Amino acid sequence: MQDQSTFKRVRVFDTTLRDGEQAPANGMSPEQKLEMALSIEALGVDCVEAGFPASSPSDFEATRRISRSLTRARFATFSRTRREDLDLAVEAGGTDNHEVQMVATGSDIHLKYKRGVTRAEAVAEVSTAVAHAASLGITHISVGIEDASRSDDDLLKSLTETAVSSGATCIILADTTGCMVPQEYGELIGKIRSWVPNSIRVSTHCHDDFGLSLANALAGLEFGADEVQVTLGGIGERAGNTPLEELAAVLAYKSDFYQMHTEIQLSGMYEAYTVLRQMVSLAEPRNKPIFGTYAFGTVAGIHQQGILSNPATYEYVEPSVFGRERSLLVGRHSGRSVLRHLLDGLDARLTEAEVDEIYRRHIAERAGSDCEDLAVLRRRLAAELDGHKAPLMPDLAS
Amino acid sequence: MQDQSTFKRVRVFDTTLRDGEQAPANGMSPEQKLEMALSIEALGVDCVEAGFPASSPSDFEATRRISRSLTRARFATFSRTRREDLDLAVEAGGTDNHEVQMVATGSDIHLKYKRGVTRAEAVAEVSTAVAHAASLGITHISVGIEDASRSDDDLLKSLTETAVSSGATCIILADTTGCMVPQEYGELIGKIRSWVPNSIRVSTHCHDDFGLSLANALAGLEFGADEVQVTLGGIGERAGNTPLEELAAVLAYKSDFYQMHTEIQLSGMYEAYTVLRQMVSLAEPRNKPIFGTYAFGTVAGIHQQGILSNPATYEYVEPSVFGRERSLLVGRHSGRSVLRHLLDGLDARLTEAEVDEIYRRHIAERAGSDCEDLAVLRRRLAAELDGHKAPLMPDLAS
Repeated sequence: MQDQSTFKRVRVFDTTLRDGEQAPANGMSPEQKLEMALSIEALGVDCVEAGFPASSPSDFEATRRISRSLTRARFATFSRTRREDLDLAVEAGGTDNHEVQMVATGSDIHLKYKRGVTRAEAVAEVSTAVAHAASLGITHISVGIEDASRSDDDLLKSLTETAVSSGATCIILADTTGCMVPQEYGELIGKIRSWVPNSIRVSTHCHDDFGLSLANALAGLEFGADEVQVTLGGIGERAGNTPLEELAAVLAYKSDFYQMHTEIQLSGMYEAYTVLRQMVSLAEPRNKPIFGTYAFGTVAGIHQQGILSNPATYEYVEPSVFGRERSLLVGRHSGRSVLRHLLDGLDARLTEAEVDEIYRRHIAERAGSDCEDLAVLRRRLAAELDGHKAPLMPDLAS
Repeated sequence: MQDQSTFKRVRVFDTTLRDGEQAPANGMSPEQKLEMALSIEALGVDCVEAGFPASSPSDFEATRRISRSLTRARFATFSRTRREDLDLAVEAGGTDNHEVQMVATGSDIHLKYKRGVTRAEAVAEVSTAVAHAASLGITHISVGIEDASRSDDDLLKSLTETAVSSGATCIILADTTGCMVPQEYGELIGKIRSWVPNSIRVSTHCHDDFGLSLANALAGLEFGADEVQVTLGGIGERAGNTPLEELAAVLAYKSDFYQMHTEIQLSGMYEAYTVLRQMVSLAEPRNKPIFGTYAFGTVAGIHQQGILSNPATYEYVEPSVFGRERSLLVGRHSGRSVLRHLLDGLDARLTEAEVDEIYRRHIAERAGSDCEDLAVLRRRLAAELDGHKAPLMPDLAS
């Protein structure tokens, strides 16, 4: 962790309660959304997207509650470029501290098959909608260009320039289908950055269909984006969105490399994710970065030998930073080093042959995928060894 | 999908049954390992790592079986730089078609805290072990530099040059703790590539602690790596390894950008992953790229409106390519377009008010996170509408 005071401050826009919540099986009630919004605000994000008020009475109500309850972060709402969507967003959340994010149709395939409108009509929609939002008294007006990653310069330039000249304060480049690799997405961001004044915020919105949503967002930042749209645990449409925890971890540990930092509180993330998981009945993943059951656990002897001496041998990302604990497990892949560590703690004086026998029974010949916490094996060994001071393990004689 | 015939052919080394299997809760029996090895071979990988024969009788037996059963791919074994590890690997698998992967200690932190040896001793170990492997008749000798991402040029150069001059045919650069970002890892690979002759294979081994294992592997390829070490579903130590399916998907869809391709059979991946999940009792993830329950599913009206007209609006990565199916679900986030699609299919002639009422009851006011498959709602609506030709929905009058 470096001194980050001189680094560029990256804004974090959380869309857990919009793109995350709209994905299958992730629906939440207004009460649940409010609770999550406050948890996410407490992590230090700059903006919490509350939902899409025009989409349902539930999203309208969630927006109403969240808009009245946040104390530090801005809240955002999602709208189409329809007058009635914007009216409902303002009816739900008022205008104070409210960022309206409206979606512009950004590619020919979306124009033709989804919208049935021409390029000129799509550009006109943006102009009208931005002007309408401004007339309602909204001062934070974002235009998200959907499917920007399959657009072309003419359409992107028309949409961007129209948005800015109509009064938009932020342009979001959505890789809606997750079709880009980091270099491509970085160059897309760089192009938009070169077209708009520095006063206009440029934001990323990446999807993980290839598993590159974080790398794409980082490339976007390197090419001049000011803000990253993320979700807790990366929940969202299809493969999900850029995960908040991964972005925050990289920019905390590698801020020196990127010359950037965020103000995300890493220590509360796991708890917030656990609450989210419970709300949407999502099982804890086994190997996920930061949040996986075993993200900081190991059973392998070749790793435990190092960790017992110094955890840094196999940990660069540290569990305590994220409110988590390291776990050492014992299974077939464990080695003698973890056994010696256990036996030393039990103050047992055993011959090499006795240690070999314990190793064989409790480790090497353990069945299948079975593994258990060190503390559990310690209790079993203590019970076995208890009362057998000389000879220590009579059953070994057989 | 582009014509890939002129592109660089990337080798794929699968470590599902070694790094994947050694992670907590992923242990498998020799029978299970053999079944998975054959499935993984059928996907078209170049090398299947069978395990670490010296670590347990089970891994020895798995290696023995796998070495006799593969018909196309090479198999690999994992060893320390110990004579007895190499002897056991050869005892288990013979020398034919056998790639020995031995681990060199690559950083001062590992030398001091894990091994208790000097740099000179670590280099000497490599020399002795490579020579011993060669003397056993092994022709494919790989040296994996553990924790190479926290090493320095002096140590890396000593290890690499000694390995090559002793007879190693491949150098693997392990980002053991997952501490690197793509540019850093790419440059590490580029450096090693510049030190060794083109006849020496350079391979990646990346971990996902930051969520960058795929991006790092791709950066490694861009800087000259010949091979990528992967696991099915990205299983492995802590946050896991570079996922086979993501690497294969990117290089299939973006081969034109990278000017590279693999020979991985994409269509069988999901089935192989499902078998793996069942063996190690891993729940299906909700949002994972390619393999998530909803990786190709959506419930949101703003997406379904496009997908019903043309799936390409929201799909760049296509489900059928990976042996999967698109799913349209109905929930609170669905819109009128999916309802009209359903009603059209039922040949129901309803007034706008009747459609509004059905929309309100079945979509807008649906509780919580509840969502259901389109086919299920279709059956319910058909039953509701059946026998009510005029008036179509008498209960709507109330």
